[in-house]
Parts: sequence; C-alpha cells; structure tokens
Amino acid sequence: MPAQIGVTGLAVMGANLARNFARNGYTVALHNRSVEKTDALLAAHGGEGDFVRTETLAELVDALEVPRRVLIMVKAGTPVDSVIEQLVPLLEEGDIVIDAGNSHYEDTRRREAALAEKGLHFVGIGVSGGEEGALLGPSIMPGGSRESYDALGPLLEKISAKVDGEPCCAWIGTDGAGHFVKMVHNGIEYADMQVIGEAYDLLRSGAGIGPAEQAGIFEEWNKGELASFLIEITAEVLAHVDAKTGAPFVDVIVDSAGQKGTGRWTVVSALELGSPVSAIAESVFARGLSSQRDQRSRAQGALAGGEAEVQLPVEFVEDVRQALYASKLVSYAQGLDMLTSAAAEYGWDLKLDEIASLWRGGCIIRAELLKEITGAYAAGERPANLLLAPAFRDAIAAALPAWRRVVSTAVQLGIPVPVFSASLAYYDGLRRDRLPAALTQGLRDLFGAHTYGRVDAEGTFHTLWSGDKSEVAAVDTH
Amino acid sequence: MPAQIGVTGLAVMGANLARNFARNGYTVALHNRSVEKTDALLAAHGGEGDFVRTETLAELVDALEVPRRVLIMVKAGTPVDSVIEQLVPLLEEGDIVIDAGNSHYEDTRRREAALAEKGLHFVGIGVSGGEEGALLGPSIMPGGSRESYDALGPLLEKISAKVDGEPCCAWIGTDGAGHFVKMVHNGIEYADMQVIGEAYDLLRSGAGIGPAEQAGIFEEWNKGELASFLIEITAEVLAHVDAKTGAPFVDVIVDSAGQKGTGRWTVVSALELGSPVSAIAESVFARGLSSQRDQRSRAQGALAGGEAEVQLPVEFVEDVRQALYASKLVSYAQGLDMLTSAAAEYGWDLKLDEIASLWRGGCIIRAELLKEITGAYAAGERPANLLLAPAFRDAIAAALPAWRRVVSTAVQLGIPVPVFSASLAYYDGLRRDRLPAALTQGLRDLFGAHTYGRVDAEGTFHTLWSGDKSEVAAVDTH
Repeated sequence: MPAQIGVTGLAVMGANLARNFARNGYTVALHNRSVEKTDALLAAHGGEGDFVRTETLAELVDALEVPRRVLIMVKAGTPVDSVIEQLVPLLEEGDIVIDAGNSHYEDTRRREAALAEKGLHFVGIGVSGGEEGALLGPSIMPGGSRESYDALGPLLEKISAKVDGEPCCAWIGTDGAGHFVKMVHNGIEYADMQVIGEAYDLLRSGAGIGPAEQAGIFEEWNKGELASFLIEITAEVLAHVDAKTGAPFVDVIVDSAGQKGTGRWTVVSALELGSPVSAIAESVFARGLSSQRDQRSRAQGALAGGEAEVQLPVEFVEDVRQALYASKLVSYAQGLDMLTSAAAEYGWDLKLDEIASLWRGGCIIRAELLKEITGAYAAGERPANLLLAPAFRDAIAAALPAWRRVVSTAVQLGIPVPVFSASLAYYDGLRRDRLPAALTQGLRDLFGAHTYGRVDAEGTFHTLWSGDKSEVAAVDTH
Repeated sequence: MPAQIGVTGLAVMGANLARNFARNGYTVALHNRSVEKTDALLAAHGGEGDFVRTETLAELVDALEVPRRVLIMVKAGTPVDSVIEQLVPLLEEGDIVIDAGNSHYEDTRRREAALAEKGLHFVGIGVSGGEEGALLGPSIMPGGSRESYDALGPLLEKISAKVDGEPCCAWIGTDGAGHFVKMVHNGIEYADMQVIGEAYDLLRSGAGIGPAEQAGIFEEWNKGELASFLIEITAEVLAHVDAKTGAPFVDVIVDSAGQKGTGRWTVVSALELGSPVSAIAESVFARGLSSQRDQRSRAQGALAGGEAEVQLPVEFVEDVRQALYASKLVSYAQGLDMLTSAAAEYGWDLKLDEIASLWRGGCIIRAELLKEITGAYAAGERPANLLLAPAFRDAIAAALPAWRRVVSTAVQLGIPVPVFSASLAYYDGLRRDRLPAALTQGLRDLFGAHTYGRVDAEGTFHTLWSGDKSEVAAVDTH
C-alpha cells in the first residue's frame, strides 16, 4: 500500500513528526541520509503505525501515492536546497515538497518560485511546539499555494494540536507566508519571555519575593487572564530546586540568554516593513546585553545606581501582574501589526483571526488571551491595531494606572524593565495627538533639505534656512 | 596639465565635492552622464579653480594623472555598479575608484573584492555634512586598502572639515569600514534627534513651555556640555515662526518623520552582530510609529490616558537637560560598541579615538562631547564600554537622579520617551549583578532543551523536566 506521506530527515523533530503521522493512521515512508537513524526509529517506535523503510530518496518517492507529499526536516539553509535538488528530478508535476524546518521566509519564497516553474508545489510550513509538540500535536502554519493545501491540509490538520475540537492548523497564505507567520510567532515568544523575566525581577529585586514564593504567584496568575504555557512553566522553573546546591534552580543558571536567530529575523523584517516592533526588539537586545559578560562584569560596582528612595505601591504584586498583561498585549499588537504590513508587502491575505486561533494550542505562546484575540478579529470590523479592539482597549485602560506605577517604580529603583517601558512608550506614542516627529522633520529640512508636510496644505515644502527663511514648494529628491 | 582627481555624477553632492577639490587647489576633471550638468557647473562656478571638462568616461580617465583617482557620486545601488562596469575597462592597475555615496557597506565589501582581483583599488568613503558640508568641508570616512589611502588621503584630508587644525578625515579600515562607520554615524544621528524631540516634548507637554521660549533654553544648553550642531539648529527651528499662519513653525509641520534607510541599516547590522543598540532602534521605531497616521488618528481619543497626578520635579528643565545628556551618551556608547563588534567580525582595526575625532567637525552629529570621547579612547586603557570611561562614568552618576526623575515623571504623565527610557534600561541592565536572562534560559531549557550554563561549573547542562528533573551534562545541538 502506498504511503500518504514521506519524511526525509529523521533527527528528533523529523522523527517525531513522522511518528505523529503514523499514530494518526497514515502510512509514512521514512528516509534518512544514514539509514541507521531510520532503523533506530523503526526499532524503537515501529509498532506505533504503518511505516515504509526506504534507503534512498528514489525509493522514498516510489513509496508514495500520487500526488506525492515529501516532507523535508533538515537544518535550515543550504541543506534544504541540497535535498530539494536531489528530490526534484524524481518528482512529477503536481507533487508537493514540504519544508517543515525553521527556514527564512525569503528562502521559502525563492524555493516556491523555482519549484512552481517545474510544476511542483513547494510548501514551507512553520511548526511550533518543540519536540514534544511535533509528536503530540504542534501548531502548524503552512504556506504555499491554496491548491497544495487541498491535498496536504487534511493530513496536517489531523496531526496538529486541537483546541475545543478545532485543529491548530490553517492555510496561511501563498509562498513564504507560513514561515513568516512562524517567525513572528517566535518574535512574540521572545517578548513573552522577557516580560515574564521583568515581572520576576521586579518581584525579586523590588519586593524581595524569592523564587519559591513566586512559583505560587505565577501559578495563581495562570488561573486568570495571563493563563498560558509560558506562565505555567515559569511556575515550574521557579519552584525547582537545584539538587547539587540546594539553591533555587534559577540562581545557579548563568544569566546570559542565547538565541537561535528567529527573534532577530523578526526585528530585521519589521525594520524593512517600517513596522515599529519595539517590544520584540527590546527582548532581542536584552538577550544580547545579557550575553556581553565581559562588559557586564566590568560595569558591576563601577557604575553608579543613583536609585531613589521610593515606597513600593501598596498592591505591588497585582500591579506587576497588570503591567505584565498590558505589556504582553503590546507585543502581540506589534507582532500582528507587522503581519498586516507584510500582507500588503507580499500580497498575502493573512487572516489574523485564523492565525491567532491556531496559536491557541500546540505552540510555545499558547494562551487564553489568543481566544480573545481571535474574537477581536473575527467580529465585524477588523481593528487597525489590536489595542483598538474594544475588549483590549478596555483591558489596557483598566491596567494603565498599575502599568505606570510599575514602570515608574522600576525606573526609580534602578531595575531594568526594557519591554515594560518600551511597550508603554509605544502605547503613549500611538494615542498621541502630536509627536515630536514634527521637530525631527524641521531639523531634517534645515540640515538636509529633506522637506516636510504642512498640517494645513497638501504637498511638500522646504524652508530656505540659509536664505530669507521663506517657504517654497518642494519636490523631495532625496 | 593632468587632473589630480576626476568626479563623475554632478548632482549637487558630486558638484559640491568637485568644487571643494578645486577650491583647495586641485585640478578636477568633470564628467556627467548628460553634459548639460557639467556645463552648468562650469558656467556657474568654473572660476573657482581648475576644471577639465570631459564628455565621456574615457575622456575623464584620460584627463587624470597616474594612479588615477575617479570619484563616483551617483545614487546608491545598481547605478554605482553600472558606472564601475563602464569604468573598469578604461583603468590600469593601481588606479583608484572611489564611491562617495551612501552605499551599504556590504556592497562596498563586494565591490572592493571584485576590483582588487583586477588590480584596482576600490575605496568606499562615507561623507557627512550634507550639501553644505560637501562644499565647505565634510567629515570623511574612507575605507579601502591602506595603500590606496597613501595616494588618496592627502586630497581628502585637504577638503575635509578641520577642528583645531586637524582634518576630520582619517583612514578607517579596509573594504567597507568607511561606509560602515558612516552608517553608524547616521544611526547615532537618529538617536540624537529623537532625544532632542523627547526633551522638547517633555518641556512642551509636561511643563507647558512654548517653542519660542524653548528656543532660548536650547540656545542656553548649546553653551554647555550639550553644545552641538543639532542643539544649535533645534534652537533655530523652534524660534522660527511660520509666515503664513503666524504660528510656531514646528506646529505647522506634519508630525510624521521620514527616513532614508541608514538608521534602519544600522539596527539591522547591530542585530546581526548581536549588539544591543536599543536607543538607536527606538529612534527608528519612533519615526515608523509617527508615520502610521491611520492608526494614530483612530487611536486618538479612543485610547485611555490613565495619567497620574504628579508634581513636576522642582528643577524640571535642568532635569530634562541632564536626562538628555545621559541618554545621548548611551546612544553613543551603543554605536561605539557596535563598531567594536564589527571590527572583530570584519577584521577591521577600528580606532575609536580617531573615529570620534573625525566626527567632531563637518558632520551632522558634530558636538563638543566628541572631544571627550576622543580623549576617553586615546588615553591609556581602552574602556570596554564608553560608559565605563571615568569621565562618562562620573557624568552619568551625576545625571542619574535627574534622569530617573524625568523618565518616571514622563511615564506618569503619559508622555512617550522611548529613547530616554530605553537608554536608562540599558544602563541599568549593563550594571546589573544578575539579569532575569537566567529565568529565560530555564524556560528555554524546559520547552526546547536549549540547555544552560551553571554559575558554578563549566559546560552546558539540561534538566530532564519531563523525567525526574535531574540534571545531565549536555551538548547543545539546537
């Protein structure tokens, strides 16, 4: 019996996806560059479903029903191109090549266009949920042609996470849309983790609450509007005690956060789109700064604190919770705003309600909040910004006094809260009648003749600064 | 008599550079795609020095002494490649092709390598100072080989700005180093303008001080440690009254700031280098947000303010001045840190004292401060971060109480100060004993087996979170 899907690349992510397909009743053809991995998978898990063992890509392709579905799970970058190059001559018009790795969406766009010329479908899919998610049900963000989704979607929906019976998988949009949305998911994930870190730091350094007690606080928070996977595991990590030293686990970890690059990609892409993702960027920079250990160790003790003596707000823990929630909303608003810009730039019809919906389960940022976000975009008019959706507008309004108190207190106490404060600055900038950007334009016109617009007239203008300072209509040639 | 230098591309920047060379005693061969521009330049300014009129690139090349120096001043991007392609067959080994436009340093690296293969020197030079600077003396940042600087440097130094008799021009480093440093200059310029805007906004919205009165304040500030071109012209712009309406000029300008891209390039490059340039990034994002006029107009009135009732600090104007100075220092520290990272990445021996020195005059960010920065890197040990240089460490310590008061007040009043607060968060992060990045690492290990370091042991580790939570030594394969 021909297999419905083939998987090449059987490291843990590929192996787990293959097992997930098999456990859901599909016959799965397996291939790996070295057949040992294939055999190891079959030996350990061969009983979980119907697998077809193959030794070469040609055998893999021969084992598949038509149109063939071949899922590649190898390291992003040239390894993907290399597998594609070997696969293409073996395939026929209408076959589907799937890249389930963490590829950059521009690579996916390039590959999709190249394979489309040969009559093949190329589908970049974002998969979130880590190794466990891959096995038990990830959140899946497939790009590629709508047509390819008809043949591939049902399988992906079957193996995806489910929330309220709905699959956490939907067609995102053409070419690189799936990988783009996955990238932004990761950017939001960076911000999500950083705001948790800032809340923890405030409670620890500001209020002197130790990790064990904080574990209880995060557990409590996980029952309310903050309920999410990351809050849940924060409680778990904070409760953990290091066996070797008996100290709180979090205190024995080197405080330098690593990164794999998707957060950085998100910010680079936002910069290209002109989309202000300050909360996500500050999260990436916070990791960067944490890793500059030489500078940090020289700065300790050498740099003054100059902290003010301030009293903590009466309900400090609750204030921090509200500030965390508001800051988190801003990072989602920025991520979704970036998706809106990308949709216009790349011609994708991104449905923000569906995207929020499929992030509800399986992925790292899964959260109760995403149900409300889904609702905000599903109901009637699509808000120009998440923060303008009535539910979130009201939630922020309620949290604002606490948010301001927390950031103000942190600033006085010398506790760095880059994302709490960047989020608040974004919010205050967005709602502002007049921004000092007007002055910026005045300066740019003076030193570079960059011209400016007037509030009371169409067109662009230039002031003759080194002449009689009269104003002339201008054509911006810069 | 053969010309010492040829200039092709006679729009205003190219024309002004050509005139600058001629006014400094060099014979300058002129070329432009359409000869009308050449003739217009000669008609208007031919008496300023010795010019050689040419109609083709071949004539231009023939007019030059050997080794030939040909300066290209055309739009960055493919036009530069196109001129190079036409020029190369006309040149001989040892000739020097100069790109004085705002090219991306990666393009410069590529072009330098390609021309080096043909025995030609390619020199990307950053030129700052706008049209006026190009004519009267810009700040010049030349890259390319050391050898090419021997033949080209004296001419560039001659036409550059001078401060205390020293030229604002020095060899920066090989290949794209000049354009890289110019890019970072522009990134700092973005931050410089944004912190001025935030100070203006605080004085206007916080303290109710109008533009005319503020012009006097900035004029006063320009006499102290903030003395700089941008503070000087801020006073000029704020003092200006719109002739049409009689209103302060700054109030008739549309408050959406444009950008040409070099600020964005700076942040993208910093992200690639892992360098935390939060102040520069927030400046770029502030322009982006200011340009989202649809979202902003919908948000006005719709989003709550939730401002607290707070009293302004007693010495608010002076506090703002100190906060502005401290924030400005941070943006310089971040820009210079990025140069240090780039030097390591690209193998450039960047001399931060020379770079700070040549920014003292001619360019947009020219400022008294740069003399002190020059000194900080010239004297003895090179600080790991500008903020650790004794003079700046002390300056920040003195400004800290005011800085904290200002950011805290802004947060309570709902005035967005993204760069003031990002700078303060960076400073507080840098000097921190423990950062919540430790918690981030714990979370990453739990959901993605990304591993972590221990404060008390070498190596990387992983906790078996879904097992017995024991710890194992790990090889990071992610």
